[in-house]
Amino acid sequence: MSITSFIPPQRTLMGPGPSDIYPQVLQALSRPTIGHLDPLFIKMMDELKQLLQYAFQTKNTFTIAVSAPGSAGMEACFVNLVEAGDKVLVCRNGVFGDRMRENVERCGGIAIMVDNAWGEPVSPALVEQALQTDPDIKIVAFVHAETSTGALSDAKTLAEIARKYDCLTIVDAVTSLGGVPLLVDEWQLDAVYSGSQKCLSCVPGLSPLTFSEQAIAKIQQRKTPVQSWFLDQSLVLGYWSGEGKRSYHHTAPVNSLYALHEALVLLHNEGLEQAWQRHHRAHLELKTGLEALGIQFVVEEAYRLPQLNAVYIPEGIDDAAVRSTLLERYNLEIGAGLGTLAGKAWRIGLMGYAARNENVALCLKALESTLK
Amino acid sequence: MSITSFIPPQRTLMGPGPSDIYPQVLQALSRPTIGHLDPLFIKMMDELKQLLQYAFQTKNTFTIAVSAPGSAGMEACFVNLVEAGDKVLVCRNGVFGDRMRENVERCGGIAIMVDNAWGEPVSPALVEQALQTDPDIKIVAFVHAETSTGALSDAKTLAEIARKYDCLTIVDAVTSLGGVPLLVDEWQLDAVYSGSQKCLSCVPGLSPLTFSEQAIAKIQQRKTPVQSWFLDQSLVLGYWSGEGKRSYHHTAPVNSLYALHEALVLLHNEGLEQAWQRHHRAHLELKTGLEALGIQFVVEEAYRLPQLNAVYIPEGIDDAAVRSTLLERYNLEIGAGLGTLAGKAWRIGLMGYAARNENVALCLKALESTLK
Repeated sequence: MSITSFIPPQRTLMGPGPSDIYPQVLQALSRPTIGHLDPLFIKMMDELKQLLQYAFQTKNTFTIAVSAPGSAGMEACFVNLVEAGDKVLVCRNGVFGDRMRENVERCGGIAIMVDNAWGEPVSPALVEQALQTDPDIKIVAFVHAETSTGALSDAKTLAEIARKYDCLTIVDAVTSLGGVPLLVDEWQLDAVYSGSQKCLSCVPGLSPLTFSEQAIAKIQQRKTPVQSWFLDQSLVLGYWSGEGKRSYHHTAPVNSLYALHEALVLLHNEGLEQAWQRHHRAHLELKTGLEALGIQFVVEEAYRLPQLNAVYIPEGIDDAAVRSTLLERYNLEIGAGLGTLAGKAWRIGLMGYAARNENVALCLKALESTLK
Repeated sequence: MSITSFIPPQRTLMGPGPSDIYPQVLQALSRPTIGHLDPLFIKMMDELKQLLQYAFQTKNTFTIAVSAPGSAGMEACFVNLVEAGDKVLVCRNGVFGDRMRENVERCGGIAIMVDNAWGEPVSPALVEQALQTDPDIKIVAFVHAETSTGALSDAKTLAEIARKYDCLTIVDAVTSLGGVPLLVDEWQLDAVYSGSQKCLSCVPGLSPLTFSEQAIAKIQQRKTPVQSWFLDQSLVLGYWSGEGKRSYHHTAPVNSLYALHEALVLLHNEGLEQAWQRHHRAHLELKTGLEALGIQFVVEEAYRLPQLNAVYIPEGIDDAAVRSTLLERYNLEIGAGLGTLAGKAWRIGLMGYAARNENVALCLKALESTLK
């Protein structure tokens, strides 16, 4: 076996994530590792909590980063909030709504599905209708920004409807956090998870997570233990708690948390509104260029995510060949379609550090040359 | 809120992990992020698999790194191999045996406990006795190297006994991998998990994992779905499989995997036997020095882990004050006692890059000065 150090090329990442990483974040990542119970590390975690509260726009005490990717953040919400036999309304308009269903069922819960076509937002009317029909439903789960289609759903309205029927909400904000408005407290969302590798432009592997008081109360009223030890947030809380002695749960991914801290400092310095506007401006620029190339969007204009542009592959074009050429000639990654959009669409990400004019220019010119 | 970049100090990490990181590993960690489906990344993962097979001394096809810390690696073994009602023999001689019990119970399994005192190895005789008594037991779970006490158990003999009674083994090798002999194939272990942040001297956050053919067969014969979506290894296998198109499961922690790849290249270059010997030599040097200070080991000489030295705090010494002084005056971290050893013992780690003469010298001199 003759394996040597792996030296990756410098890519421009404009797929569905990981996105381009801020250079400052990579620097932070490689700072000296210290112990996960070191007083200085604990101080860093307290800061990280405040920074996450800013990013989520919440005062929730329970605001942390799960030590694993976004799909573990999703699972953390379901295993803590759902018990066997519980009915959960799951909105499905792409891959991640279906993953929510999987999660409900693996918790022994009953998933009541509300379906919208891929590329459409979740329909508030269908959600209300389902909740009227079945008063046993106690949780509404939906994806704020569907990474598989690029559609934005109206989290505020969906949460209002859920509350009207006395339901908690579980919200997938993996692709929305930092890219479009997400106001956890103002919209009264209950369990919201995200990912580090999208609009925060941090390395993949962490899942920001916040629970409202109502979510915490529901967890405290559980009749059965959480089926996952690793994701049991009542145990994790003892580790993230700022008060008194920190109790050991698992070894925190120290360096990845440095990176997330740095990414959030950058977001705070820029300002959330400025970041949202930057994503929007980059999207408009990309849109103009793509339309000039005759490329059509999957999602109607009103529901389009600026940070995740799903577009139809022009007719007669070889999907894989184009993506390979972009990668090989331009070191540019764009995303393939997922699920029902596989082979039919590309997903062009403008997330975090990638939402810049230079990225848009490179992508447009490279696509233009490759599609000729 | 005025939070700026977090600049950690340069510590010497001689606790129970994270251990001192190889400088090359920190370098690898901060290399440019590429996509987790990039052909070059997939090639890197194939290499990583080979390197992990070397570290585990196995030809198991299913040899991967779980995208989360060792406690998730532990849970991955239990949720995949245990179904509701299954009886599992759990050996408990420290914190992590008890965490195994938690895992069995949260899977709906029945944990039959074999207890040994903290600091003792698992008794093969007690294990055999328990298996004789209850022929329904189908899995034996034990900790190879107990991080909470520094005791090494005889994995080879325990696995022999398990096989005699037609049981599979789940083995915690979090602290043993790379520090003491661990021969997965020769000893015929079935499900073995470890951590990146111990004797591999990589950053925390990943859990190397290997399943034997027998373990895979048991997973394939399950009557019920694995309760965790994130840790369902039948789904993960599609992502790590070298054959054909890689299927998307979750976004891999790209940079952390670079770091693990580098740590394993370093281990392979040094050679496993040389690494084991280096840990042993450092331990002997530390032992001589500690004994000269009148400090006693928790574990009998025959079962002592070279990489994790649990020692009694001398009488009249203030545990926390000493550890604070070491940290503040020498930037040196040693570990506190855990569980029943809290306040009574220190845990001095000589793991991976920390198993060096300079670390031993610093630790001995700093302790000598502080205890005066």
